[in-house]
Amino acid sequence: MNAPRFLILADRDFGPLTSKTANSIVRYLPDRTVAVLDSQLAGKTAQDVLGYGGAIPVVATMREGLAFKPEAVLIGIAPQGGRLPEHWRTWLAEALDAGCDIWSGLHTFLADDPMLVERARANGRKLLDLRKPPADLPVASGRAKDVDPLVVLTVGTDCNVGKMTAQLQLVDKLRSRGMRTNFVATGQTGIMIVGSGISVDAVVSDFTAGAAERLVLEASGDADIVLVEGQGSINHPGYSGVTLSLLHGSCPDALILCHQASRVYLGDYREASWVKIPPLTDYIRWYEDIGSAVHPTKVVGICLNTYDLDDAAARDAIARAERETGLPCTDPVRYDPAPLVDAIMAVRSRLSR
Amino acid sequence: MNAPRFLILADRDFGPLTSKTANSIVRYLPDRTVAVLDSQLAGKTAQDVLGYGGAIPVVATMREGLAFKPEAVLIGIAPQGGRLPEHWRTWLAEALDAGCDIWSGLHTFLADDPMLVERARANGRKLLDLRKPPADLPVASGRAKDVDPLVVLTVGTDCNVGKMTAQLQLVDKLRSRGMRTNFVATGQTGIMIVGSGISVDAVVSDFTAGAAERLVLEASGDADIVLVEGQGSINHPGYSGVTLSLLHGSCPDALILCHQASRVYLGDYREASWVKIPPLTDYIRWYEDIGSAVHPTKVVGICLNTYDLDDAAARDAIARAERETGLPCTDPVRYDPAPLVDAIMAVRSRLSR
Repeated sequence: MNAPRFLILADRDFGPLTSKTANSIVRYLPDRTVAVLDSQLAGKTAQDVLGYGGAIPVVATMREGLAFKPEAVLIGIAPQGGRLPEHWRTWLAEALDAGCDIWSGLHTFLADDPMLVERARANGRKLLDLRKPPADLPVASGRAKDVDPLVVLTVGTDCNVGKMTAQLQLVDKLRSRGMRTNFVATGQTGIMIVGSGISVDAVVSDFTAGAAERLVLEASGDADIVLVEGQGSINHPGYSGVTLSLLHGSCPDALILCHQASRVYLGDYREASWVKIPPLTDYIRWYEDIGSAVHPTKVVGICLNTYDLDDAAARDAIARAERETGLPCTDPVRYDPAPLVDAIMAVRSRLSR
Repeated sequence: MNAPRFLILADRDFGPLTSKTANSIVRYLPDRTVAVLDSQLAGKTAQDVLGYGGAIPVVATMREGLAFKPEAVLIGIAPQGGRLPEHWRTWLAEALDAGCDIWSGLHTFLADDPMLVERARANGRKLLDLRKPPADLPVASGRAKDVDPLVVLTVGTDCNVGKMTAQLQLVDKLRSRGMRTNFVATGQTGIMIVGSGISVDAVVSDFTAGAAERLVLEASGDADIVLVEGQGSINHPGYSGVTLSLLHGSCPDALILCHQASRVYLGDYREASWVKIPPLTDYIRWYEDIGSAVHPTKVVGICLNTYDLDDAAARDAIARAERETGLPCTDPVRYDPAPLVDAIMAVRSRLSR
């Protein structure tokens, strides 16, 4: 799938921590991103707001955005409460009238909105609900443990720490070492970037591990290494079930533990200061212990997101994580991903996969 | 909800381990069960097949079953592959024509079958899809940790070991000790028995913990003790995500670990002898360690299903489990549930809940 030229809708929420989907599209598909709509930040560039994305402009209205001739409007944030606000629906109708498709990764499906369905039909445009899972998913059977490639899953200390980004940063590096490497998208943003995958958090829970298994099987035919995008965290009160389904369904041989160095509490519950993030060694024990109950697995490296630290603090945090865990650590966005690439190559060699 | 008079459909699968839903209806609603349909066991009684259920007859055809004047046909087994076999659909239509409602706990919904919908409408009867979740479930917020009652969750070494049954055996005993006790059904069979609940395994995985949280909040208003029906197992390759969502969403103060004494491998994968059931102490560590990452919790007792052992072997298995774990253990169906009731009362007293 070739990505269209996107106008990203991120109104009143464009920012490093608030617009995860928008940001990843800006990071990985900058050449396909014509503008970002955020009425509060209009006049800035993506670079101003995120620290990357270059001159991609931020605009205030749909009309201004459409002037950049996008082929699709991509919903880059989740609206409060999950329902599309009325003025978004007006904007999306305007975009359909201007000849754009709409890409959405929301739990509420555009195809369930009769007005948008009718407007898309009238204009011959498409509504893409990328979070909608296939209808025929199985209960996991364990077949993912028998695939030939080395399977590597990212796991996290929280949501939104960089599990997908970590994997995407490794794909090219592994390929440059001669490894046929496939990335498996398990969330709506990854699906938007690579054009395939299943948003496992939108799957009925009896079949969530089965979805992960199917993705690994499909990605294994022509690969030496399969990188599976992780979701959530094993101690996240809302999403831990998604995380464990992915861990058991994908049967990874190796795990990369992802953490945002400056984060103290789980982000979704920050106001309550409820769930404090424990030491990385607790997470390593949890993931290895529970993961290996189904298929033997080891954490082989730490991916540290240091986007909000200065260089000295970032290097210090990386060194500290290495001392604490005894594992190689890097921020693969900011620094050389080689320590994680080396760790994956080493485990592949050790397991002869 | 007052249960109607049921004819249970369990064709070619009625048996102690194969027809979980049918068996629980026979056990807990024997006075509402007029017959069981299984063409291979016709002529026997429920008592013959299950060891309980008394004179409830097994019949060969829908016509014979309808002669017992049921008010509803209850689908008591899951068909292979999930889809309703064609001859079941014919039987269900026959039952609708005879004035019965249809109760189903399947993942595939009766309401999606146009023929059955039309036939129900024509006869003024209802199709009840008890596994269909409410549409407006939230992401878990952690509010279940703040409820007043003591929350007790059953957890298991596998599916189908007696997690629901354990709780149901305790309800009356706790009430007889003066405890206002509510049972929370989290699966289709429990919902059929008590008339309310959410089948959490049919909920989209981002909202599964939220479903558990809502159930606990709803059950807490007028209770001293809330017993939450557990699902699956934390090391089950297909269903572990459901289990963990329930563990984190319901924020239990205490856990009862349920095991079938004679089981060696996880049942769904028995042919492959894939996942061997590890020692009970492994499960205790897993459930306490991962559960307490969100809300402090302890395993306070062991519920041992000994249905297929003779008395001496059953008592021996119970004694062995007590020695291994240092926890009180009983088979609450076969013997006095008091050890588990005492354990719950003790933890309630210790926590002053």
